[in-house]
Amino acid sequence: MQIITIGRQFGSGGRIIAQKLAKRLGINYYDKELITIAAKKSGASPELFEKVDEEAANSLLYSMVIGMYATSSRMVNYGELSINDKIYALQSEIIEDIAKKESCVIVGRCADYVLRENPDVINAFIFSNVEDRIKRAQEEYKIESKNIKEFILRSDKKRANYYNFYTGKKWGTVGNYNICLDSGKLGIEGCVDVLEMIAKSK
Amino acid sequence: MQIITIGRQFGSGGRIIAQKLAKRLGINYYDKELITIAAKKSGASPELFEKVDEEAANSLLYSMVIGMYATSSRMVNYGELSINDKIYALQSEIIEDIAKKESCVIVGRCADYVLRENPDVINAFIFSNVEDRIKRAQEEYKIESKNIKEFILRSDKKRANYYNFYTGKKWGTVGNYNICLDSGKLGIEGCVDVLEMIAKSK
Repeated sequence: MQIITIGRQFGSGGRIIAQKLAKRLGINYYDKELITIAAKKSGASPELFEKVDEEAANSLLYSMVIGMYATSSRMVNYGELSINDKIYALQSEIIEDIAKKESCVIVGRCADYVLRENPDVINAFIFSNVEDRIKRAQEEYKIESKNIKEFILRSDKKRANYYNFYTGKKWGTVGNYNICLDSGKLGIEGCVDVLEMIAKSK
Repeated sequence: MQIITIGRQFGSGGRIIAQKLAKRLGINYYDKELITIAAKKSGASPELFEKVDEEAANSLLYSMVIGMYATSSRMVNYGELSINDKIYALQSEIIEDIAKKESCVIVGRCADYVLRENPDVINAFIFSNVEDRIKRAQEEYKIESKNIKEFILRSDKKRANYYNFYTGKKWGTVGNYNICLDSGKLGIEGCVDVLEMIAKSK
């Protein structure tokens, strides 16, 4: 079993590095969207979607949380939690389930923290200086804005807040990861090379 | 030209990783002691050692600073600096000189910051959790102490203070380096493998 989690600064190319790495290793890649799909497949009960609070009706994930926990054999009582906390709890369970079943690469969602007791996990963090990220954001995501730097820094801030809140640790701090890579200096392929070598040496 | 600088937490094995890396790449290894020797060889004037302030008489490096700058073609006026600052200034110049002349691996001494304008430099940071470092300190350095954890953390604190003071940045923070490696998880040889691959791919 080989699990690689990847945290990343916005615009650092962490997602594409994760996708390329998964492809090279011949294992699955998961991010927020794919964790959602996995949750849906894993047994959320469609009938229960109708019972979802009206205020949360637009949130597919909230629906699934209700569905999951109503039908789950675990039957954990998350009734007191906020909707964000419920989504976090569901995503964490999905991540744990995936990590038990298959080798994979998981991007974001505090997967390093969720899987902290799992000795098969390698935690990576991808970063780069903001100038390189502005360039990437313009090229890859076609983001054109006078305020692109502020947008990037705000996106990082959101990721940091999310991570720090749910883990009690500090996002992007070396001790949380096993390897941190500067994609601006090493390049996208260079980062994939390093992570592939580490994954294969385990 | 290939320069690799290595910062490291105390007990993380950063020094041995640097030595092994230099050997594999067939290039020189430098640390604080070897930078001092390089300074001595590089033209400090022995006669000027006699003129050194009495209070600093025991400091070889201070002597060399006086010697270096009295005879240096640069003739920078460091007269107003403290002895620590003079030593830092001398070491920085030696690091710059070495990096101009030869490929090498340099441990510590804020070399990442000193060489920040040099595009040939790869900056690495080696870290590990404190339990792994206690084990290494006991095995490698034969440090036996009930207070070994405090000793390790105090050593880190000294390195952080030194780095933060001279660079205005925060020691051990991802953005200062191009790659950060957890030697506890990846192993000493694993870290050398990664750094060797990166050095050879440049």
